[in-house]
Amino acid sequence: MASVNENFLKLSAGYLFPEIGRRVREYKTRNPKADVISMGIGDVTQPLPPACIEAMHAAVDQMSRPETFRGYGPEQGYDFLIDAILENDYKSRGVQLHKDEIFVSDGAKCDTANIQEVFGADNVVAVTDPVYPVYIDTNVMAGRTGPAGKNGQFEQVVYMPCTAENNFVPDLPKQHVDLIYLCYPNNPTGAVAAKEQLKKWVDYALQNKSVILFDAAYEAYITDAEIPHSIYEIEGAKDVAIEFRSFSKTAGFTGLRCAFTVVPKQLKAYAKSSRAVDVNPLWLRRHTTKFNGASYISQAAAAAVYSSAGKKQCRQIIDIYLNNASRIRSSLHSLGYTVFGGVNAPYLWVKTPNNLSSWQFFDLLLNQANVVCTPGSGFGPAGEGFVRLTAFAKPENCLQALYRFAKIRL
Amino acid sequence: MASVNENFLKLSAGYLFPEIGRRVREYKTRNPKADVISMGIGDVTQPLPPACIEAMHAAVDQMSRPETFRGYGPEQGYDFLIDAILENDYKSRGVQLHKDEIFVSDGAKCDTANIQEVFGADNVVAVTDPVYPVYIDTNVMAGRTGPAGKNGQFEQVVYMPCTAENNFVPDLPKQHVDLIYLCYPNNPTGAVAAKEQLKKWVDYALQNKSVILFDAAYEAYITDAEIPHSIYEIEGAKDVAIEFRSFSKTAGFTGLRCAFTVVPKQLKAYAKSSRAVDVNPLWLRRHTTKFNGASYISQAAAAAVYSSAGKKQCRQIIDIYLNNASRIRSSLHSLGYTVFGGVNAPYLWVKTPNNLSSWQFFDLLLNQANVVCTPGSGFGPAGEGFVRLTAFAKPENCLQALYRFAKIRL
Repeated sequence: MASVNENFLKLSAGYLFPEIGRRVREYKTRNPKADVISMGIGDVTQPLPPACIEAMHAAVDQMSRPETFRGYGPEQGYDFLIDAILENDYKSRGVQLHKDEIFVSDGAKCDTANIQEVFGADNVVAVTDPVYPVYIDTNVMAGRTGPAGKNGQFEQVVYMPCTAENNFVPDLPKQHVDLIYLCYPNNPTGAVAAKEQLKKWVDYALQNKSVILFDAAYEAYITDAEIPHSIYEIEGAKDVAIEFRSFSKTAGFTGLRCAFTVVPKQLKAYAKSSRAVDVNPLWLRRHTTKFNGASYISQAAAAAVYSSAGKKQCRQIIDIYLNNASRIRSSLHSLGYTVFGGVNAPYLWVKTPNNLSSWQFFDLLLNQANVVCTPGSGFGPAGEGFVRLTAFAKPENCLQALYRFAKIRL
Repeated sequence: MASVNENFLKLSAGYLFPEIGRRVREYKTRNPKADVISMGIGDVTQPLPPACIEAMHAAVDQMSRPETFRGYGPEQGYDFLIDAILENDYKSRGVQLHKDEIFVSDGAKCDTANIQEVFGADNVVAVTDPVYPVYIDTNVMAGRTGPAGKNGQFEQVVYMPCTAENNFVPDLPKQHVDLIYLCYPNNPTGAVAAKEQLKKWVDYALQNKSVILFDAAYEAYITDAEIPHSIYEIEGAKDVAIEFRSFSKTAGFTGLRCAFTVVPKQLKAYAKSSRAVDVNPLWLRRHTTKFNGASYISQAAAAAVYSSAGKKQCRQIIDIYLNNASRIRSSLHSLGYTVFGGVNAPYLWVKTPNNLSSWQFFDLLLNQANVVCTPGSGFGPAGEGFVRLTAFAKPENCLQALYRFAKIRL
């Protein structure tokens, strides 16, 4: 009798985005002429940079000729892309990494989901609250948690509240934790972590032999020169941190699928015998056994992101989104809202007015302004009383949405 | 203290292909002018069908314009592709499936690797010997096996020998098994399974509440009208079988990455309470949580495989490889070799002459003919005394290799 992995049964059916979809569909059915603007889902709207388009056409042509056709590539990614990553993302910021510390993949969602596989079932997992649900759900599936409680939080997971009081960067936990998921610039709060804040965490991990899983998918949105783009800008981080990067929000690759993960060779985890084990070869074994490389076309496009034209074009696109963010921030501020994020990040974390719940404000916004947001409570209990807005809309839609915000009667 | 998943430590470092690479490199260093022909690795050499090239150029152009740009697609794949799959791969063979039973992905390697996650840790896994190593290694990583014995086989796994005596289709096991990996047309033996052979397995699974994981990545190579392309051509299979398909060998997508998996809605596995649980929603939850869709460009190319031009072009490419296979088969046969496979499959399974071991014949072939094969023992103990040849070389290289075979002194 084939048995199921009963850990999957602990998960709710992923209610947040389906529930948003259901309410929006219902509203549209009742109001078929309504022009609903989405500021909810974190997907880009600008077309790909011309440098990437050009690189993809060239790559497609290569695939049409026997002498330039490419079949299986290295599972870890092509050298032409890894070299560009090392040079532009790391060397330029004073971080020296080796080629075999970079693992190109088809998405940071996949990598942040899969990384837990190389760690034991007994690790205590720490996540922020609010949090990107993938970090938790994948640990639930792997059996590192108990069942969910009434507030949706899983037993055995350490949730670290992120609030205005701690600038949305969690305090060190009181109990010991082994695997620590951090995401800065943060989804959903749009907060960033300063060097000294990350240093506190790296020092904690060094002292406790913990591992930090650092999601830097939004680093391209950092404009403040003092904010680190990579956790490896912190001394000692190579001993304790794995970093995730993505081309999705940097260059609009959400439909193309390309990302990478850094697993430093000096990073250790431990066998039950207390013997230190290198994590890099474990991830290499996982990556080469369960994955067959990202599409060559996507890797060619990703390499073009680092060309001088590509860099300029990506910057222009990011500036469009950051301009949106800035407009949302100042408009809502002048309307009396309390707004966080949106400066070094494409996300804004907006306090609901009049102590409305996240879902109450979601409904009000949908009904009065035809604007879709994401209820903060969907990211965890500390998100209650907030909604997330994203800056990825087309500028004209963003302006229209803000115009409607101004007309809301609370 | 972060602990490692110690199951990873049970795995050898994936010695087969690296060891082949090492021996080939060493030979080339000693013989820098040697023109070495690879018939070892199962990668395609023909360029992509023109219909796919055209579809990709069009898709790239769509990504360059705001009004046609596509960001995140559905994790399960675009309807335009799923509809084409249902119509061409299944309806045409009398198999009715629903849209939400198809899950488009970036590769059958990933899917056959990941599928075990939705099943419990206590399932008894059965694999053929010889076998595609991914099926085993991923179960080792998940803790469903003991350590490896001297012959490289893992404790708790049921290995089912495939030999000339059983036409390389395993006999039903004497002990009870829960998860059964079958691959037909087979990698590495090139064998196919007849309808009645598959029916025996489906009946076994129905009686034992087992699940068959059916890898049909090479179905496009079936030329014999009597051989089933899908396990769902067998009555009852939808209750007990998951099927894996790929565009890699069908249309040359090894560098593009597109595949799909079928999880019928009526397929059940069981909770400890003996309650039947639908597997389809578990896989949906896994797929949407840990994966973000295959590249839109690759999906557009995959849909073009089903256009009338695409079908014709794919057939032409497959015929090139099948012609290679036929030539290898008849040439080696006339040289006195015992050869299996290569009729409905791109793989040939060649008995080593004079009772040489797989590696001895590998070395002899490399040294005397400058031809690289894959030692059969690398796929399991029952592969000892065989080598695998693939038919994916360019026809001129294939001919040259056979010419050299004729000159070997045994």
